[in-house]
Amino acid sequence: MSRIEIKNEHQLGAPARQVVASLDIDSRGIGFTDITPAVGAWIEKQGFHDGLLALLIMHTSASLTIQENADPDVRADLMDALARMAPESAPWRHTSEGPDDMPAHVKSALTDTSLALPVRRGKLVLGTWQAVYLVEHRQHAHARSVQMHYVGS
Amino acid sequence: MSRIEIKNEHQLGAPARQVVASLDIDSRGIGFTDITPAVGAWIEKQGFHDGLLALLIMHTSASLTIQENADPDVRADLMDALARMAPESAPWRHTSEGPDDMPAHVKSALTDTSLALPVRRGKLVLGTWQAVYLVEHRQHAHARSVQMHYVGS
Amino acid sequence: MSRIEIKNEHQLGAPARQVVASLDIDSRGIGFTDITPAVGAWIEKQGFHDGLLALLIMHTSASLTIQENADPDVRADLMDALARMAPESAPWRHTSEGPDDMPAHVKSALTDTSLALPVRRGKLVLGTWQAVYLVEHRQHAHARSVQMHYVGS
Repeated sequence: MSRIEIKNEHQLGAPARQVVASLDIDSRGIGFTDITPAVGAWIEKQGFHDGLLALLIMHTSASLTIQENADPDVRADLMDALARMAPESAPWRHTSEGPDDMPAHVKSALTDTSLALPVRRGKLVLGTWQAVYLVEHRQHAHARSVQMHYVGS
Repeated sequence: MSRIEIKNEHQLGAPARQVVASLDIDSRGIGFTDITPAVGAWIEKQGFHDGLLALLIMHTSASLTIQENADPDVRADLMDALARMAPESAPWRHTSEGPDDMPAHVKSALTDTSLALPVRRGKLVLGTWQAVYLVEHRQHAHARSVQMHYVGS
Repeated sequence: MSRIEIKNEHQLGAPARQVVASLDIDSRGIGFTDITPAVGAWIEKQGFHDGLLALLIMHTSASLTIQENADPDVRADLMDALARMAPESAPWRHTSEGPDDMPAHVKSALTDTSLALPVRRGKLVLGTWQAVYLVEHRQHAHARSVQMHYVGS
């Protein structure tokens, strides 16, 4: 059996605030944009203490993912892996928006559309090697929007 | 660098309500059921203002996903892509519940079991081309249940 | 059309508490650890009534998933399916941390990093055949940490 232990338990202030905003990103075509700094700056500016931040990307050919933030090869390899799972050469029915559109929908379904992230002492709770990425799955640049919804203190 | 901008910031009412309900769906076999209208009608009936709605599907051979709501070919292609990733012909150990059961578990793991969706001014926040789908991965009809849990104003 | 019905609607107490803790797991190498009992015991010990529990795994080569808790073959088959989608033999760029590291990142992206789970009457709301698993994707044992953040009554 794996050893399991509960640590660092804290009672926090009651959830008394809700704030929303839209994070608008102009992607530069297929690839990853680290949105952690922008989300973190917004949390700091709002003076949030502790709570949950829900992120929803309002598109189905771009997505969200939490991934390794150190070696950029990890993101390149992940993109290649997704391309092998949903290649442009597969026999897609939906081709009217270009050969990269249907693979983009599949890659979005395989990664994340919605995330619920803890905020603690005014900062996103993430591991040392984690960042939150918007992933553009279309070849060309697109205007993308992520809804942020905070509930907390 | 991608351009990132924060817009439409709003301070909302404090989260003072919690309401739950079960969304019961009789699926008609493998395929997608758009649950957006039923969820939206429940939000309206309850008079919710702003908050978070968590959805949990209580099964592991059906799942949730947010996908394109316009061209039905997108859903058919997504189903085909999932079938290529988890084909019935793979050498599965778990075959006692039929050849479509283990592929259904894999497809569920690849899509979503839990979603946390923002509600704003009494409506689900979704992009123009997005809908929330229950995805039945078994060949035959099944009774499925999605737990809805709202926290907000 | 699939039949959809809303049932078991309940107005719950206002969300007045936030509590966090860290669930630390020593994995024993590639495979699944059922964290449902530990999470359930913590909920009970804290005396939570109704709310949302967000879970975030603070790593990108291990992940979370909600899967079938009955036949262990289901987990073995799921692991095999993930290995077919992200085999060690693929032409990865990122190899400096060993041949199992990049497949682990891909498998993490395909499953869950963040979950938002309803708690009702002091218990996690899950289907009869569901459990919440930490999935270790690296071959060897690792110390893993899951942040738990509760908002509710």
